[in-house]
Amino acid sequence: MADSRPIGVFDSGLGGLTVTKEIIKLLPNEDIIYFGDTGRVPYGTKGPETIKKYAADDEKFLLSKNVKLIVAACGTVSSVASEVSSKLPVPFIEVISHSVKSAVSATRNKKIGVLATAATIKSGKHKKLILDMMPDALVTEVAGTLLVPIVEEGFYGSGNPVLENAVKIYTKPFKDNNIDTLILGCTHFPLVADAIKKEMGEDVVLINMGIETAKAVKDTLKSSDMLNLNGGNHKFFVSDKGTTFEKTAFALLGEKVNENNIETVDIKNI
Amino acid sequence: MADSRPIGVFDSGLGGLTVTKEIIKLLPNEDIIYFGDTGRVPYGTKGPETIKKYAADDEKFLLSKNVKLIVAACGTVSSVASEVSSKLPVPFIEVISHSVKSAVSATRNKKIGVLATAATIKSGKHKKLILDMMPDALVTEVAGTLLVPIVEEGFYGSGNPVLENAVKIYTKPFKDNNIDTLILGCTHFPLVADAIKKEMGEDVVLINMGIETAKAVKDTLKSSDMLNLNGGNHKFFVSDKGTTFEKTAFALLGEKVNENNIETVDIKNI
Repeated sequence: MADSRPIGVFDSGLGGLTVTKEIIKLLPNEDIIYFGDTGRVPYGTKGPETIKKYAADDEKFLLSKNVKLIVAACGTVSSVASEVSSKLPVPFIEVISHSVKSAVSATRNKKIGVLATAATIKSGKHKKLILDMMPDALVTEVAGTLLVPIVEEGFYGSGNPVLENAVKIYTKPFKDNNIDTLILGCTHFPLVADAIKKEMGEDVVLINMGIETAKAVKDTLKSSDMLNLNGGNHKFFVSDKGTTFEKTAFALLGEKVNENNIETVDIKNI
Repeated sequence: MADSRPIGVFDSGLGGLTVTKEIIKLLPNEDIIYFGDTGRVPYGTKGPETIKKYAADDEKFLLSKNVKLIVAACGTVSSVASEVSSKLPVPFIEVISHSVKSAVSATRNKKIGVLATAATIKSGKHKKLILDMMPDALVTEVAGTLLVPIVEEGFYGSGNPVLENAVKIYTKPFKDNNIDTLILGCTHFPLVADAIKKEMGEDVVLINMGIETAKAVKDTLKSSDMLNLNGGNHKFFVSDKGTTFEKTAFALLGEKVNENNIETVDIKNI
């Protein structure tokens, strides 16, 4: 039996669109409701209590839209608020555990790097999950905080000196520790993957959490017989349109967001 | 007659501490209540309706603390929400008009630059005020968005290549247009003034809004006989302690914030 309700995806802002892009690619017949909390973005530099409160608001909004499954398309929320989210009345998928599984399969020298926001790194969630699966792994964690606003400012083009210098600083501990696998633990980072690859070398495997998460969404829906066969509509909600919404959304999603498909909501009153 | 009530200062986050620093320097006997909306920071990339709503919350909080005067120590709020704030029951001081006056006095070639957040630049407020006072001025406006997270990441030290390359990109239009006076229109920018000076040359006058605003606060209190002669206590409130609060607060305020003087408040319930 097919389930025609939409998939709900949320993020602190627009970064989750890189995950949405992979879900659309893998599941073109699903309807998707996206909520980006752009009025309070970023979450990655904030404290855990604030992040949990915000994630609960975001989930409440998606549930009001009758979604069949919720994706926290945000490394920060996944690292801090997944316990809260496990009580949801619909299946919940976060972006960390699937990336970790993939990294553990990929590494040959058991030296894994994690590049994420400050809040995600502080949570230590990637490291804990990696060590649960591979107790003798060496995990190197770096908070690459500035890469998020660098992407949002549009400075992710090849050869941008601000990006290249930031990548140099953030990847140094990975090179020093000779990692062979790197988890890109923030939704913005697929856009700077080329710059990271250039600095780290071709042999280092980069784990894209969007791709891993999309696979997990498909598996979950398939095994519960909840796939949609006739959908494909995408609707986007934000709590603020900000100053660079269209440019950033296009960069992250890889396609233009139709003006009629975007709505601004007041998250304070949900 | 002296007025012993505190001065209220607010900002989207911690940037307003650079203004607070100047107020403390000029008015050491005043009590100060600072509120930084770190749970929703930054405002500078968000839209005007959101910023107005947040500013109203911040002002409501300060009024609940019985302040005698409110300073919007934030270029973004000053550019977008000063009309709303003009209805406050206490004197209101914003950071733009005093910087503009100072820039108009300082320029010799009538070519003035404004470096601020995206929201401030979009408001066009500096440009409008400059042209009101000096109709034949040439105003060059640049949104230096990334400089805010660069400061919060701690990358403002002399010679940091991320900072230097960002400054190179953002100051190019100022150099192209041969400005001789530059308004640093965001509270974070005093920390990158040296890097800007290095790029622009010693002859360009940099206008620090903290200094101009502190003078305006003193003038207002003095002319209304509202100065405090026996205070000097400073209390800080934030809506989230985040991941780098202490480091950033110290950098911006120039002194350590005592743990007992910081309190976290839930701005959603004010």
